[in-house]
Amino acid sequence: MDTDRLERQIQFLLEIDKLKSVYRRTYLIDADRRENSAEHSWHLAILVMVLAEHANEPLDISRVMRMVLVHDIVEIDAGDTYFYSDQGDKIERERAAAKRIFALLPADQSLEFQNLWEEFEGGVTPESHFAQAMDRFVPQLHNFHTHGRSWTEHGITAELVLSRNERISDGSTILWEWTRSLIGRAVASGIIKEL
Amino acid sequence: MDTDRLERQIQFLLEIDKLKSVYRRTYLIDADRRENSAEHSWHLAILVMVLAEHANEPLDISRVMRMVLVHDIVEIDAGDTYFYSDQGDKIERERAAAKRIFALLPADQSLEFQNLWEEFEGGVTPESHFAQAMDRFVPQLHNFHTHGRSWTEHGITAELVLSRNERISDGSTILWEWTRSLIGRAVASGIIKEL
Repeated sequence: MDTDRLERQIQFLLEIDKLKSVYRRTYLIDADRRENSAEHSWHLAILVMVLAEHANEPLDISRVMRMVLVHDIVEIDAGDTYFYSDQGDKIERERAAAKRIFALLPADQSLEFQNLWEEFEGGVTPESHFAQAMDRFVPQLHNFHTHGRSWTEHGITAELVLSRNERISDGSTILWEWTRSLIGRAVASGIIKEL
Repeated sequence: MDTDRLERQIQFLLEIDKLKSVYRRTYLIDADRRENSAEHSWHLAILVMVLAEHANEPLDISRVMRMVLVHDIVEIDAGDTYFYSDQGDKIERERAAAKRIFALLPADQSLEFQNLWEEFEGGVTPESHFAQAMDRFVPQLHNFHTHGRSWTEHGITAELVLSRNERISDGSTILWEWTRSLIGRAVASGIIKEL
C-alpha cells in the first residue's frame, strides 16, 4: 500500500481537530457556552438528514451532507466571521485557508474537498442552496431557545434577521415560512426587537 | 404541508443539541479539554470520507457516514460509557435512550435512525464494521498526540489497547496494521506502558 498517502490523510485528520476550538457567536440551548464549528457541522449534517424533504428541488442528499461537514474547516485558519458583521476580507482569508488545509490531503481528495467548499460558497446548485439554508436556519433555533442571547449581545433586530436570512427560501420556501413565523413569535414575546 | 411533521422534526433537532454536552474520556489534541460526542461524531464522518478507500470490503459510504453521525445520540440519556471500563448495563440504557429520542421524529424517520443505530451496534454489515473501526481508530490518534493523557489517567496498557481494538481489522486490515505500529511507537517513546 501507499504509506505516504495514508500518512497525508492522517495529518489532515489531525489538523482538523482544531475546528473543535473555533467558537461561534451562537450559544448552546442547554449549556452556558458558545457553540464550536465542529459540533455545529455535525448538527447541520443531521438537519440535512431530517429536513431534506422540505427542499424546493430534488437533492443529492449525500452531497449536501458532505458539503455541510466540510464547509467550516477553513475557519481553522480564517476564524468564524460573525454573520451580521462586516464580512471584510472573509473570502480571501477562507480561500487561503482552503488552499493550505486541503493541500494536506492527497491530490485527488484535496480537489474533492476544495470542490465541496467552493460549491457551498458559490451557492449556485440546488445542493448548495439547501446547505446554506441549513446553515442559516439552525442559529434561529438556538437564538430563539436561548431567549435571544446572541441577538441581544450583538443588538440584532428582527428586521435584520429577516433581511439577511431571506435566502433560506432559495433552499426551502417551507422552512423560510417557518422561520418567519418563529421570528414573529420572538418579536411578540419580547425576545428580539422588531426594528 | 404537514405542520405536525415539521414540528416533530424540529423538536428532535432541538433535543439532540444536548449531545454537545456529553463528554468523552478523550482529550483534544490542541486544547486542554475533553472531547464531546457531537464534535467526535463530526470527526468520524470526515474520517469516513477520507479513509473509506482502506476498507476491507466495498462500502455504501453515505450509509457509513449516516451511521457514525447518528450512533452516539443515545448518549444524551445513557451517557458516554468508557470503552475500557465494565460496560455494565450499557446496552439496556442505550436501547431505552434510542426508543425515547428517536421516537421524537415522525415514524418513518424514527425507524430510519433506529435502524442506523442498530446496524452500528450489531456490527454485522461491512458498513458497520468500518464505522466501528473508525470509532476505535480515532481515539488512538488523540491519545498518541496528547502524550497518552487519557491512557495514563485510566492506567491503560498497550496490551489492553491492542486486545480491545483488534476489531479495527474487521473494517480495515490496513488501518489495524497502522494502529499496531502507532501503539508500538507509543510504547517505544514511553507514552504508554506495555503491560
